[in-house]
This record gives sequence, C-alpha cells and structure tokens, in this order.
Amino acid sequence: MSESTARTMPDDSRFDILSAAAQCFMERGYHASSIDDVARSLGSTKGRVYHHFPSKADLFAEVFRTGMEMNYTAIEPYREKDIPAVMRWRHLATIHTGQMIRTKPFQRVVWEGVELHLRGATTPEQREVFARLLQYRTEYGLIFRKTIEEARDAGAMDFENLGIAAELMFMTLNSPIFWYSPRPDETEGDIDRLVGQIVTCAARGLGAS
Amino acid sequence: MSESTARTMPDDSRFDILSAAAQCFMERGYHASSIDDVARSLGSTKGRVYHHFPSKADLFAEVFRTGMEMNYTAIEPYREKDIPAVMRWRHLATIHTGQMIRTKPFQRVVWEGVELHLRGATTPEQREVFARLLQYRTEYGLIFRKTIEEARDAGAMDFENLGIAAELMFMTLNSPIFWYSPRPDETEGDIDRLVGQIVTCAARGLGAS
Repeated sequence: MSESTARTMPDDSRFDILSAAAQCFMERGYHASSIDDVARSLGSTKGRVYHHFPSKADLFAEVFRTGMEMNYTAIEPYREKDIPAVMRWRHLATIHTGQMIRTKPFQRVVWEGVELHLRGATTPEQREVFARLLQYRTEYGLIFRKTIEEARDAGAMDFENLGIAAELMFMTLNSPIFWYSPRPDETEGDIDRLVGQIVTCAARGLGAS
Repeated sequence: MSESTARTMPDDSRFDILSAAAQCFMERGYHASSIDDVARSLGSTKGRVYHHFPSKADLFAEVFRTGMEMNYTAIEPYREKDIPAVMRWRHLATIHTGQMIRTKPFQRVVWEGVELHLRGATTPEQREVFARLLQYRTEYGLIFRKTIEEARDAGAMDFENLGIAAELMFMTLNSPIFWYSPRPDETEGDIDRLVGQIVTCAARGLGAS
C-alpha cells in the first residue's frame, strides 16, 4: 500500500492518477489493464505512474481503498445521527447510491477487487492487502446492516432474514455500477431523481413503512 | 459455436464437460481458466475437451448459451399463461430465481460473458458469437419487462420508470449468483423458502399489490 506516498505527493496529482486508473480498470478489467494504458490516458509517462505506485496491483488496491474511503467520508454526517433508524437509513442509502453513480469507476474497482480476492486471483502478498480492504468494506456494510436491524426492531421495517435483506438491499443500491451511464445534458437534479427511484425500490423491498 | 457437435455427441458427456467448465469459469474467471483445468476437474484429458470444443472461447460461449437455454426452458410453461400479469410475473420470477441458485455456475458465466463483451475483451470473431448470445439474453429480459409493464398498466404494480424498474428487479432476482452458497443439509424446501424471500423483495420493490 502507498500510505507514505499519500503523505508526500500533492493530492491532485495523486488523485489524477487514481481517477485515470479507475477508469481504465472499469473499462477493461484488472487483467486487461496496464500501467501503460493508465499513463496513456493521462498523457503522461509510465515512469510517472510507477514513481507513485510500484505495481499495477498496488495501484488497483489504492483505487479500491480510495473508493471505500470516499464512501465512508460521504456517509459520516449521518452515521450516528440521532434520528429514527428508518430515517437514518434513508439518508445513508441516498448518499451511498449517489456515490455509486458519481464515483462509478472507483466503485466498479471495489466490486472487481472483491471478486478477484474471493477467486483467489491474488498473490500471497496481495492477499493480505486485499483481506484488509475487504474488511474495510465489510465494516462499511455493517453500518447499513445494523441500521436496518434497528429499524426492524422499532417496527419501521419488515423483513424475514437480516443477512438476506442486507444482501438484497446492497444489490439494489449498488446496481447503478452495472447499468448506469451518464446521459448528455444530465443535471444533478436528474441524478438525484434517479437515486430517489433506487432508494424507494430498496426501501419497499425492506418493508419500510 | 458447437451446434454440429451438439447433434453428434451423447448429451451426458457433452453436459458433463459444460458443467465442469461452468464450475471452473465461476471459480477462476474466464482469463484464469484453462482447458487443462476443465479436463483435470473431469479426471479427463485435454484432448477429450478439445475434441468437442475447439477453444476455451468456444467452450465459454457454449456454457453461456446453455445457461440461457435452461432459463428459457424453465419459464416456458408460464411465459404465455393466461393469468393476470402480476401472477404470471410471480411465477416467472420464482422460476428464474430458482435457476440462479440451482444452476449458479452457468448463470455466473452468463454474467461474466456480458461483462467481457461490453468491455470489448473479445476477438472480432468472438464478438459476433457474443453479440448473438447477448441478444438471446436481451430477449429473455424483455419477457419479464413486458410482464411488469402489463402488470403496471393493469394497476397491479406501481413504479415510475419501466427501464429502471426492470434493471432493479433483475439485480434482485439475479443476486444469488453473487452471495448464495449451498449449506450442508440444505433441502429443496430451504431453497424454495430462500427464493420466496427474494421474490417477495423484488415484488415489493415493483410496488406489487
């Protein structure tokens, strides 16, 4: 991982590389992407990318971590907010779904990272890094899971099995990473309206009152 | 494609190869899988697999086609059944979700095939085959889409945008291909109960009465 790199580089240059990498990984997948592709899309040299990220695997892991970090930051204001759980869930779900749309390339990398790790398509050294990243993602998921559990216990949601309900909820909220593509002239209002439809669907699925 | 092979081979031998291949592709993904892996898992020779399927890409495409064919066959009795659309949808959704669980390796290959094709990770020759396979899948999706449209027009479902509703419905019904794993001593009744929870969640999402 590149924790030390993060502290010594100007953030914008670092984030430019991560954004270009996220886009490449999303478009081609991990295996078919190369540091060359990332450099080319930046109009930069391979050297510049390697200077900051020692390997493609390291770059991929850092895109994953950044994607999750952006999600944690976005939900922070509502995470512990003292309002009924069903309302807190609606805020969290709305923010999360917006993230899936607005930072889609990063979130696709998170998804692919989970797949690669579960398939064992990582080296022993990478496995440790990915195990930590997956743990980071699992803890994020638990925030939502606990919220819907609390809402159910308060009688504001109604579902049979917590684990299954949480899986189905996340599939719905995450789904734009597979089917969303920006339309020309799309406004922030259009995206908010799209997010609203997705969250409403998930809320109904959870039996929210 | 192997249409001619299909007609000249005993079905069980052919299906054994396809099942073993589906399992390998599911576990490792297309890129990391080899004909060698498939042969090894069959306790067979590479030659036997190559005898029936000229290449890994051909084998993958045939697993995809078989997965979709099994879905079409399964829903056939309800496809045109003369009952209210919302009831027809519930039958179709229940059968489809059961397919996602009971033939999961094949359905994961269908999913990966769509991803590979959309990412352009196919050769020009494969692209034509995959374009046909995707069309085959799109037509299957339209059966469900038309059914929920009919149900909405009859006032038995309530959602804002047909395209988005169909995407969210399929994400929910398909989701077991990502999170389901068989438990020890699991009965057909347990699977039916799981399918019931998934279909109920999707039905609620669609605003089914």
